[in-house]
Order: sequence, then structure tokens, then C-alpha cells
Amino acid sequence: MSPPKVPDGATRGWIVPIGGGEQKEHDPVILERFVQLCGGRDARIMVIPTASRLADTGERYKRIFTELSAGEVRVVDFDTRRDAGEAGRLEEIAECDGIFLTGGNQLRLATLLGGTGVARLLRERNANGVHIAGTSAGASFLSEHMIAFGEDGVTPHAGSVTLAPGLGLTNRVVIDQHFTQRNRLGRLITALAFNPFLIGLGLDEDTAAFIGPDQTVEVEGSGTLTVVDAAKLKFSSMDQAGPNDSVSMLGLTMHVLVRGATFNLHTRHASAGALAVTKE
Amino acid sequence: MSPPKVPDGATRGWIVPIGGGEQKEHDPVILERFVQLCGGRDARIMVIPTASRLADTGERYKRIFTELSAGEVRVVDFDTRRDAGEAGRLEEIAECDGIFLTGGNQLRLATLLGGTGVARLLRERNANGVHIAGTSAGASFLSEHMIAFGEDGVTPHAGSVTLAPGLGLTNRVVIDQHFTQRNRLGRLITALAFNPFLIGLGLDEDTAAFIGPDQTVEVEGSGTLTVVDAAKLKFSSMDQAGPNDSVSMLGLTMHVLVRGATFNLHTRHASAGALAVTKE
Repeated sequence: MSPPKVPDGATRGWIVPIGGGEQKEHDPVILERFVQLCGGRDARIMVIPTASRLADTGERYKRIFTELSAGEVRVVDFDTRRDAGEAGRLEEIAECDGIFLTGGNQLRLATLLGGTGVARLLRERNANGVHIAGTSAGASFLSEHMIAFGEDGVTPHAGSVTLAPGLGLTNRVVIDQHFTQRNRLGRLITALAFNPFLIGLGLDEDTAAFIGPDQTVEVEGSGTLTVVDAAKLKFSSMDQAGPNDSVSMLGLTMHVLVRGATFNLHTRHASAGALAVTKE
Repeated sequence: MSPPKVPDGATRGWIVPIGGGEQKEHDPVILERFVQLCGGRDARIMVIPTASRLADTGERYKRIFTELSAGEVRVVDFDTRRDAGEAGRLEEIAECDGIFLTGGNQLRLATLLGGTGVARLLRERNANGVHIAGTSAGASFLSEHMIAFGEDGVTPHAGSVTLAPGLGLTNRVVIDQHFTQRNRLGRLITALAFNPFLIGLGLDEDTAAFIGPDQTVEVEGSGTLTVVDAAKLKFSSMDQAGPNDSVSMLGLTMHVLVRGATFNLHTRHASAGALAVTKE
């Protein structure tokens, strides 16, 4: 699933991966910004808790978004692939301003929604201006190339990451979450070692990448966003590495960004500049 | 790398994955059809032997295509990522009617060409009508989601396949080669278990899938093309499977096709009908 075509005259909605563990009550800057982006008191937000196996995940986010004064919050869950083709639920998705994918397991999202009407509609809605955020597993799922699972550690080795197709709202990045907390640099770099066209985004907990329609990433929250850019890579040994071998990569570019910093996915230019004005 | 946009008025070139071991001297129907597709005696064919580490792979295919009366055959190889940005070599690619990627190791193609000017140009040329074929490793590389490596066997288990980003001429399929010969059904099904939007193409040796601009796949050669379609999948257990666990999938559709049969990637309709007329 490659990024959907944005129709003439339309502007793509924002894509907002969050590294998990975002503040929900005390100073919830990320969720608050998402509500504002979707229209604040007019915002109709749809929560999809499908990644989670906990019964109250959807209701919990409904309460949080309601406390943040969103106009209307609904929860739509999908337990089977048949659910993901049901007309009534698709209509609810068609009518919102923002969609929020909770954490859990990204392979629940991919196996339940991949190739269904829900996946098609999410892509089509984003191309037409609906903002889509995801936290933890929900963040991983947003991109075309998704980290399904992997091993912790700082340095890359060939078998440390398993990629799978994701939702495909963007194809420029591969997203990892709980980045500092779970020591995931090695597996993110490994993901780039296969094919260096990707840009790696490593999101700490309580940290979000607000990816605007102009391909500028704006960092929000209390942690760091680690950007690994392989555009100038001179060499990758992935083609010669066995599953347990370390991988050699020469010429990676890395940026560690905090709130207010930006990175442009098109020009690959990083800036430490002030937080850009929220576009609504 | 998602499929490049086809400009208004242009027609995408054919995409031709071959399962490896294609006949080269006695009755080379696949290579012959590729030459005809590219213009026969007027065809300018570019051979890229980068997947291979053997010194004579490029020259061998040059000889074969010349014997098949192609108008002009050149070999361009890339040993480093720097080579893949060199203007002279890019110009040669820009001027041909057909491009042929040899076998070897698909991760040599992805690590050397991914994110370089060569990858961009191959995508752009295909969108503008240049036909691109690949055999064995060259076949695997053609699609957006590529099988990097995996294990043999008939049934799926979670750790049996490693996906990586490929060239991305098409994003609808995941391609496997030497399919019957190396017993690869299990890993192809596993690839679909992650995200059922993919269509699996399992190509036997001496067998090719000629994928036309209208998304119809035409089978050529002496073996079978196995199509695994997960569009009607009811359930995948991949989200619950550990690395060595078997994976459950309910509702896969499978077609085994021989020369003359077709499968439409858009409608997902298979036909045993007569070999379609070669379009030039």
C-alpha cells in the first residue's frame, strides 16, 4: 500500500506517530495539539483501539479526548476481518476530522485491517485532509514499511528486525517507538540497511512527530526524535550478513531532535528552530 | 518506494519477473518475448548484472540477447553506491527500451541501488514505457515489498520470511522465485500473513509473469505461476505467533497457472485462457 494520491485541490491530513506513553492527564501536549489540529471544540475524533486487547482502551481515550474538549469522540473497534468490511463502521470513519490508533500490537492492525475497506478508507480520508495519529503500535502501523517486531540493542545485526507492510500513509519513513526506553537504535538502523531509501524515525515515549502535508516533521512532547538518514550511505553489508552477523554501514546521518525542532522528509534538512505554528 | 506515477498520456512499461533458470539457448521463449516486447531488431536492451558476483554474468546475457537479434545490448554494472550516482551510467539507462536485472542476491540490488539515482531512474523510466525484467534475485527486487531471504517449506511459520523494501515498480505483489524447485510456498504465504493486502506470486524456474500496463499478468515459460490471493482472508494469527510458531490463515485463494493463463491484479480474476497477443 503506497501513499494514496491526494486529489487536485485537496491537502493531505497530518500524519502523527507518537512513541507511546504520552502524557494523558498532566500536561498532555501531544494529545492536546492533535485535538486542536482536528478543530478543537468542533473536532470529531474517531478512536480505533484494535491494536489493543484490553477492553477499556477505547473508552479511556474517549474520556481523555472529551476532557480535552473535542467536540465529539467515538470508538470503533474491529475484532475480525469481516468487521472491517461492515458498512456502518465504514460510514463512521468517513465522517470524522481525526482518527487515533491506540497502542497494542501492530500486527493486530495489519492482520485485521490490511487489504480491507477500513485500510482503503483510512488512506483515502488522509489524502482528503483527515488527520491520523497513532501511538506505539499505532505509530508503527502508519507507514508503508513497518517494523513488525525485533530485538533490542544499539548496533545493527541482520536478524534484529522484521519488516512487514503497514498502512502506507507515507512511504518515506520507517517508524520505531519506545525508542530510548527500549534501546531500539540497532533495529532501526538494521531496517535502513536493507534498502537505504528509507528514513528512520525513532520516537521516545511522550514524543510525537507531526508530519505536515508539506513533508515537514515537527517534534512535540518531552522526549527526543532520533532521525537516521541513509541518503548519503556509502556502503551497507546487509547483502553479505548472516542472521546473527553484525552489519556494517558507512555514512549514516543522524539527528537528535527535541520539541520545536523540524526535519523535512523531502529535502532531508534538519532545523533546531522554534516550534512551527500549528496549521489547522 | 511506491510505484511511480505514470504521466498523463504515457503508458507504463511491462514488469517481467522471471523465476530463475530460464532457457537461454534451447527454446528461450521468455527472453525472446522480452526482446520482442522491447522492439525486436530495434530493441536497445540494458543488462544490469549487479545482483551477481560472477564476472561474466553481464557479458553472458549480452551474448544471449544479441543472438536473439536485439538491436543493441549494453551492460552497466554498479559495484558501489557512488557508481549508482554517476552521470554517464545514468544516461545509458535513460536511453534504452528494456532493462534486464540478472540473478544473484536481491540484497546486493537493494543495498547498492536503494535510494540512489539509479533506483529513481528505473522507476521513472518504467512509468514512461520502458520494460523492466528481472530473473531470480532480479525478480524479487522489482516489487515494493521484497522477500530478502527465508526458509524452505510448505507451511507458514512466523520466522520463515524476512521482508525488505524493494525497487517498487509495483506494490500489489510479493514475488518469490525458484518456487517449486526450492519448496517456497510456506514463506510466500507467511509474507501475506503479515498484511493480507499483498498478492503472492510464486514463480517456478523457466517461468515468467508478464505484468502489463493494464495489471494483467500473462504467464510464459515451461513451469507454473502460483498466485496466492489473501483478499478474502478471514483470519491470520500472525499477530499472536512467536518466531518458530506455525501461522494459521483462513480463506486464502490459490491459483496455479501455466503458459497462456492470466491473472488480473486489479480485479483478482484468474483465467486459463489462451496466451494473449504480445503487445508492443
